[in-house]
Amino acid sequence: MLPVADARARILAALVPTAAETVALPEAAGRVLARPVVARLTQPPSDVSAMDGYALRAADAVEGATLAVIGAAPAGRPFAGLVGPGQAVRIFTGGVIPQGADAVLIQEDATPGEGTVRVNEAAREGRHIRRRGLDFAEGETVLPAGRRLTPRDIGLAAASDNPWLAVHRRPRIGILATGDEIALPGDPIPAGGIVSSNAHALAAMIRGAGGDPVVLPIARDDARAIAEVAGTAHAFDLLVTTGGASVGEHDLVQKALGAEGFELGFWQIAMRPGKPLIWGRLGRTPVLGLPGNPVSALVCGVLFLLPAIARMGGLPGDAPPTRRVRLAVPLAANDKRADHLRASLSTDAEGRLVATPAPVQDSSMIATLARADALILRAPHAPALEAGAEAEAIVLADLGV
Amino acid sequence: MLPVADARARILAALVPTAAETVALPEAAGRVLARPVVARLTQPPSDVSAMDGYALRAADAVEGATLAVIGAAPAGRPFAGLVGPGQAVRIFTGGVIPQGADAVLIQEDATPGEGTVRVNEAAREGRHIRRRGLDFAEGETVLPAGRRLTPRDIGLAAASDNPWLAVHRRPRIGILATGDEIALPGDPIPAGGIVSSNAHALAAMIRGAGGDPVVLPIARDDARAIAEVAGTAHAFDLLVTTGGASVGEHDLVQKALGAEGFELGFWQIAMRPGKPLIWGRLGRTPVLGLPGNPVSALVCGVLFLLPAIARMGGLPGDAPPTRRVRLAVPLAANDKRADHLRASLSTDAEGRLVATPAPVQDSSMIATLARADALILRAPHAPALEAGAEAEAIVLADLGV
Repeated sequence: MLPVADARARILAALVPTAAETVALPEAAGRVLARPVVARLTQPPSDVSAMDGYALRAADAVEGATLAVIGAAPAGRPFAGLVGPGQAVRIFTGGVIPQGADAVLIQEDATPGEGTVRVNEAAREGRHIRRRGLDFAEGETVLPAGRRLTPRDIGLAAASDNPWLAVHRRPRIGILATGDEIALPGDPIPAGGIVSSNAHALAAMIRGAGGDPVVLPIARDDARAIAEVAGTAHAFDLLVTTGGASVGEHDLVQKALGAEGFELGFWQIAMRPGKPLIWGRLGRTPVLGLPGNPVSALVCGVLFLLPAIARMGGLPGDAPPTRRVRLAVPLAANDKRADHLRASLSTDAEGRLVATPAPVQDSSMIATLARADALILRAPHAPALEAGAEAEAIVLADLGV
Repeated sequence: MLPVADARARILAALVPTAAETVALPEAAGRVLARPVVARLTQPPSDVSAMDGYALRAADAVEGATLAVIGAAPAGRPFAGLVGPGQAVRIFTGGVIPQGADAVLIQEDATPGEGTVRVNEAAREGRHIRRRGLDFAEGETVLPAGRRLTPRDIGLAAASDNPWLAVHRRPRIGILATGDEIALPGDPIPAGGIVSSNAHALAAMIRGAGGDPVVLPIARDDARAIAEVAGTAHAFDLLVTTGGASVGEHDLVQKALGAEGFELGFWQIAMRPGKPLIWGRLGRTPVLGLPGNPVSALVCGVLFLLPAIARMGGLPGDAPPTRRVRLAVPLAANDKRADHLRASLSTDAEGRLVATPAPVQDSSMIATLARADALILRAPHAPALEAGAEAEAIVLADLGV
């Protein structure tokens, strides 16, 4: 059985980022830049006022002086003339500092008169002036390739005059659920059967992570049915299967895919839940075979599928981020398989995260998983821990899961 | 000037959740439930096996015994007969425990023969059996109203046979940027002008928070132009304006909206960046007037707009969550306005978050904001802090911002 980190490294090594596409700025939030964003202008384009007030010569701005107001410079309407000695120009935030002026008297320190202004407090040279290029300069890379764009980045790309951005195409991921026992929600359920939950949960996870999920029709536990759907694998950047991955006689997925030219990379991971994971390739399309148990499928999704989507989407695809938590209860020593305990989180009086594992950790219990906030990580052979001890946990909300 | 928390409380008090709409399960991820999700079936529907192995009578499962294998019970194909003394049924994970059996011998502890199986290790009654209803029971509320649906919740709603969900409609939010000096990205820029960045950054923030943003054409600094666009406010659950909110003569938004029946709630918040915030109502539509400075607009967006979207979308709309950080550098005592310092985050050797404020905190610098990871919160009149001291910070990635 392969350790979790080795399995993830082998998956990531087999994947490449999708090619670039051009999208309009408003569509680019959450996407990953395939090319850097370069400023097409200098911001601010001139020295501008940081406040509402009066542009003047610092030498004139002595307390008690009265200056002639010779014009106005609102943002976007520069004053064309020159500010001479004894003169001032009414200015507003973002207004261009007129020629001759070297200071801004803020309006809170001024008394306007009839065509004049009285200085109530001296203004210092350069004060309240934003220098040309304070924010960025033309030709400067304001956002590097490989960055996932935040709403703030969208603002920066806009401010630097970039209406189009080159981003990685969303990886398109086929999801194939298999099993005689599963039905779609609302459809008639076979005797002894259950409703399929993995495909749509995985689709939501994939969409949230920036992928483009395609839910395929459920394949019966029949090599021909599975092979038929697998024959469409070329349409995807990744094919994810769920179910049919464990050891029993009804584990048809490997066999069925074999007929379609499936090359097995590895299977079986030293982890719980989710030991029976398959990784391989069907023609040019990588295949990730997840277990059929809902909890196993989603935990394997967090550990392997999310990093895979990140890598295909142009990001590094690191291990999921963890946070340090305190244990509310003691934990027994772990066996040889890495464990991922579903836990709820609370905050103690010192503001630290406290994790309470669910009392039953059965891998079929999706209600327990839905109520969980975190997965407490237990390394293989980790020693027993007392209540109050620290552990690392994946906080599911951090991943949008 | 109103304190930040009071302003937020007044905004939230004026908003109501949107009405419910019915969406198909795959569209419901990230949406907020308007009605609880009730299980339409019991899961598992019968006692089922948790492992691949053999269903048998515990009394027969003594080490060395050989039992007759009388059939098979894969998941979804229950065995119709009765397991009698000395008999076993081949079973797979999720398969229904046949009548008469009360234990599962896992295949790792069994040696299959010709129509027989040898017991290599005794099986305990009830072991490896998932009891009917272990996950949830028909009629049980599996997801409460008011919950924002995670991918795991989508799985749970599917498993409990709910193909349609009632969720709050996405609040539709109009965004009106004003100013003579601003142009859309790629458009000709007026002399002394800049490219509009707020509208699209806010739109991305709104979409990420579950809202439905509508970017309106830029309105010139002209009461008629602003009033014309404001006349469409009835189409929105909230109208957000940006620019024209400060004290100067060119602050037309309030006046222009006044002609359309604008009722001012309050304006001016004791905060930095972003003092000049307007809250009011235009007919039945609430109006949030954000400052024009990009950093002020986005910080006010985090503090006021995100909670407003949450409230309209069916969530409580609490203050943004904070995390405890350590300061990399000392901070001076604060004045009477709550401050929000743009800062980068790193992790120290003990795994704690360390925040380093940007050296220049000018509210026009969107590049600094884009590079920031967090906003360090400084309460009004907060005392000076040493390097290494603790502070609260809003981690922008926690908000998808």
